[in-house]
Amino acid sequence: MITLDLILPDTRYPIHIGRDLLEQVELLLPHLPLPKVAIVCNETVAPLYLARLQQALAQHRIESFSVVLPDGEQHKDWNTLNLIFDALLSRNAERKTTLIALGGGVVGDMTGFAAACYQRGAPFIQIPTTLLAQVDSSVGGKTAINHPQGKNMIGAFYQPKAVIADMSLLDTLPERELSAGLAEVIKYGLLGDAAFLGWLEENMPRLRARDPDALQHAVKRSCEMKADIVGQDEKEQGVRALLNLGHTFGHAIEAGLGYGAWLHGEAIGAGMVLAAAASAELGWLSSSDVERVRGLVAAAGLPVKSPRMPLTRWLELMSHDKKVEAGTIRFVLLQQLGRATIQAGLPSAILEKILDRNS
Amino acid sequence: MITLDLILPDTRYPIHIGRDLLEQVELLLPHLPLPKVAIVCNETVAPLYLARLQQALAQHRIESFSVVLPDGEQHKDWNTLNLIFDALLSRNAERKTTLIALGGGVVGDMTGFAAACYQRGAPFIQIPTTLLAQVDSSVGGKTAINHPQGKNMIGAFYQPKAVIADMSLLDTLPERELSAGLAEVIKYGLLGDAAFLGWLEENMPRLRARDPDALQHAVKRSCEMKADIVGQDEKEQGVRALLNLGHTFGHAIEAGLGYGAWLHGEAIGAGMVLAAAASAELGWLSSSDVERVRGLVAAAGLPVKSPRMPLTRWLELMSHDKKVEAGTIRFVLLQQLGRATIQAGLPSAILEKILDRNS
Ligand SMILES: NC(=O)c1ccc[n+]([C@@H]2O[C@H](COP(=O)([O-])OP(=O)(O)OC[C@H]3O[C@@H](n4cnc5c(N)ncnc54)[C@H](O)[C@@H]3O)[C@@H](O)[C@H]2O)c1
Ligand SMILES: NC(=O)c1ccc[n+]([C@@H]2O[C@H](COP(=O)([O-])OP(=O)(O)OC[C@H]3O[C@@H](n4cnc5c(N)ncnc54)[C@H](O)[C@@H]3O)[C@@H](O)[C@H]2O)c1
Ligand SMILES: [Zn+2]
Ligand SMILES: [Zn+2]
Repeated sequence: MITLDLILPDTRYPIHIGRDLLEQVELLLPHLPLPKVAIVCNETVAPLYLARLQQALAQHRIESFSVVLPDGEQHKDWNTLNLIFDALLSRNAERKTTLIALGGGVVGDMTGFAAACYQRGAPFIQIPTTLLAQVDSSVGGKTAINHPQGKNMIGAFYQPKAVIADMSLLDTLPERELSAGLAEVIKYGLLGDAAFLGWLEENMPRLRARDPDALQHAVKRSCEMKADIVGQDEKEQGVRALLNLGHTFGHAIEAGLGYGAWLHGEAIGAGMVLAAAASAELGWLSSSDVERVRGLVAAAGLPVKSPRMPLTRWLELMSHDKKVEAGTIRFVLLQQLGRATIQAGLPSAILEKILDRNS
Repeated sequence: MITLDLILPDTRYPIHIGRDLLEQVELLLPHLPLPKVAIVCNETVAPLYLARLQQALAQHRIESFSVVLPDGEQHKDWNTLNLIFDALLSRNAERKTTLIALGGGVVGDMTGFAAACYQRGAPFIQIPTTLLAQVDSSVGGKTAINHPQGKNMIGAFYQPKAVIADMSLLDTLPERELSAGLAEVIKYGLLGDAAFLGWLEENMPRLRARDPDALQHAVKRSCEMKADIVGQDEKEQGVRALLNLGHTFGHAIEAGLGYGAWLHGEAIGAGMVLAAAASAELGWLSSSDVERVRGLVAAAGLPVKSPRMPLTRWLELMSHDKKVEAGTIRFVLLQQLGRATIQAGLPSAILEKILDRNS
C-alpha cells in the first residue's frame, strides 16, 4: 500500500492506494468521530462489495446502515440525492455520523454533496470503485449533482476525511468503464507530465489487461498530480482549472447527447482530441502531436470523434460551462504535450474547423 | 449609518446598519466581481422594494434580473430552491454573478444556500427586510432549506460578501413579524448581555412602536454580539451553539405544528421560556428570573406557552436537532440571566414538568 497526502491550508487527508484494502477497517477508524456510518452505494456495486464492508465494520463494532441508489449518471440529480437525506433522517444520523461513498464517481459526487449539505456538513470518506473515481473524482473535494440545464451545476467544494483506493475492486469493472477511467489518466500526462505520457503510450496494453503493477503506478501518478494541483488551488481560482482539459468540449457532448449516452470518460477522450486540434490551430502543437493524442485516446479504447452537432448548439452548451467568465468561454488547451494553459475564447472559424474534422 | 465588521479566519465582511440604504448602490459596488446580479425576492417583498433596487442598479449600469419566490416558511424547500437554479441557468448566470437576497430570513437562507451550491459557490449579498433577518439570519453565513423530517437540515456554512440592513424597510413589516424578530433580540440579551436585557425591558414599548433610535440600537447590539460569536466559531464547534438558545424547543414546535403555523420567532419565544424554566429546575435561575424572561417575551408580543404535545413527540422531534451528539440532545440553558451554557441531556422528569407547566 502507498499513502499520499493531500495538504490544504485548513486540512489534510490521506489517499491510500493498494490491493485488498476494503476490509482493512483500521484505515477508516482514525477518521470516525462516532462509531456510526452511513454507506452510500448503488444497485450494481452493492451486491459485489457492500456486505464485505459492513461485516468488516461490524467486527470493529462500527454500526452501519446503507443507502442503495439507482445506477447511472442520469440519476445524479436532486431526487436521488434526496434518497440519501431521507435515509439519514429516518435513521437519525447525526452531524458527526460519517458517510462512506462506496462506488464510482456518481456515487462519490452525490455522497460528498450530501455530506456537505447534511446538517451543513457531516464527515465523509471515499472508497472509489472505478478507475475514474480512483484517479480523479474521489480526490480533491469537488462534489455535485447535475441540473437539466448543465452538468455538475449544483455542488460544493467539500473534502473527504480519507480516500481508500482499493485496486482489487477494479477486477469486476466492465471494460468500457476501465477505458473511461483511462481518459482521466491520459489527461494528467497531457496537462503536466510528458514523461508520464510516454509511459502511458508504452504501457497502455498492460493497463487495459489490468496488470496490477501498471495500474498501481497509473493510479499513484494520477493521484500525486491531482493532490499537488488541488493543494495549490482548492477552489479553482487558477491552476486547478487545468484539470478540466477536454472537459469544456466533453461536458457539451454529455449534455448534448443527454447524460448517460456517452460515459464521462468517453466524452473527455473525444474532448481532449478537440483540445489538441484547437491547440494545433493556434500553432502550439504539431500535427504529429495531435496524432499522438489521437493515438493514445484510441489505444485506451475511447472515441476520438465527437458526435455531430451544429456549432450554435456547441456554443450554447459550452456557454453553461463553469469556467465561463464575462461571457467568454475559457478553454484548456495545450502549449505543448505535457503543458496546459487557459485560453479565453476561440475564433469560431477554428471551432468550426476542428469540430468539422473531429466529429 | 453604522458599519460593523465580521472578521473570520479566511475573510471579513461589512454589516451596514442605517436608514435609506436600499438605493445606495455604492455599498454594493465594491463587492460585485461582474456588473451582473440576480436578485432573489418573494411575492410580498417584490412589489414593495424590488423595482427601487433594480432602478438604482440600472443607474450604475449593473445588469440585473429577479427571481420572485412564493412567500412562506412552507416553501423553504428544494422545489423553491430549484426556481432559483432554473432562473440562474436560463439567464446564463456565471460563477461570478452575484446573488442578492432581498427579503426576510426565508429568502436569505434560500438565496445563501443557492449561492453556496450554484457552480459550487457564487458570491452573494444580504439585504434583509425583516427585523429577524437584520438581527440574526443575514449575519453569520448559516444557510439552509427544510426537509420534511427536520428544519434547516440541508444547508451550508457560506458567508455573504456584505450585509445591508436598511431599517426603513421595516416600516412595512407586519406587527406580528416585528414581534418575531424581537424574539432573537431578546435571545442576545439572555445569552450574553444582562445590561442589554435590562435595556430591552425598559425599551420594549419604544421598539414595538418602531422608534428609529431604539430599533437602530437593538439591531446594532444584536449584530455586534452575533458577529463576535461567529467570529470566534464560524462552524459551530463550540460557542456558536449558544445562539441556539430556545431553538431546540422552538424547532420542535415548528416541526410539530408543521412549518408556517407558528412563526420562527414565536416558537423561539416560547422555547426561551422553556429553556429558562429548565434552567430553574437545575437550580441556576430563580423563579423571579423565569418570570422576567416570561414577562419580556410577553411584552414583545410573543407566546409564552408552547403547544401541547406528548413528551414522546417532543423527544422524537428534538432528536433530529443538529446539536444531538452520540444520541444525547444538547440543550442551551441559562446559568444566569446573561450567561448561557450547553447542557447535554435533561432528566425526563424535568422535561415533563416544564412542558406541563408551559404548554
Ligand atoms: N468530483 C470530481 O472531481 C469528478 C472528476 C471526474 C468525474 N467526476 C464525475 O464522476 C462521474 C463518473 O464516474 P464513474 O466513471 O466512476 O461512473 P459511475 O459512478 O457511473 O460508475 C460507472 C459504472 O461502473 C459501475 N461500477 C462501479 N464500480 C464497479 C466495480 N468495482 N465493479 C463493477 N462495476 C462497477 C457503476 O455501477 C456504473 O454502472 C461523473 O458523474 C463525473 O461528473 C467527478
Ligand atoms: N440563517 C440563520 O442564521 C437564521 C437565523 C434565524 C432564523 N433563520 C431562518 O429565518 C427564517 C425566518 O425569517 P423571517 O422571520 O424573516 O421570515 P420570512 O422571511 O418568512 O419573513 C416574514 C414575512 O414578512 C414578509 N416581509 C419580509 N420583509 C417585509 C417587509 N419589509 N415588509 C413587509 N413584509 C415583509 C415576508 O414576505 C414574510 O411573509 C426561518 O426560516 C429561520 O429558520 C435563519
Ligand atoms: Zn472528468
Ligand atoms: Zn432563530
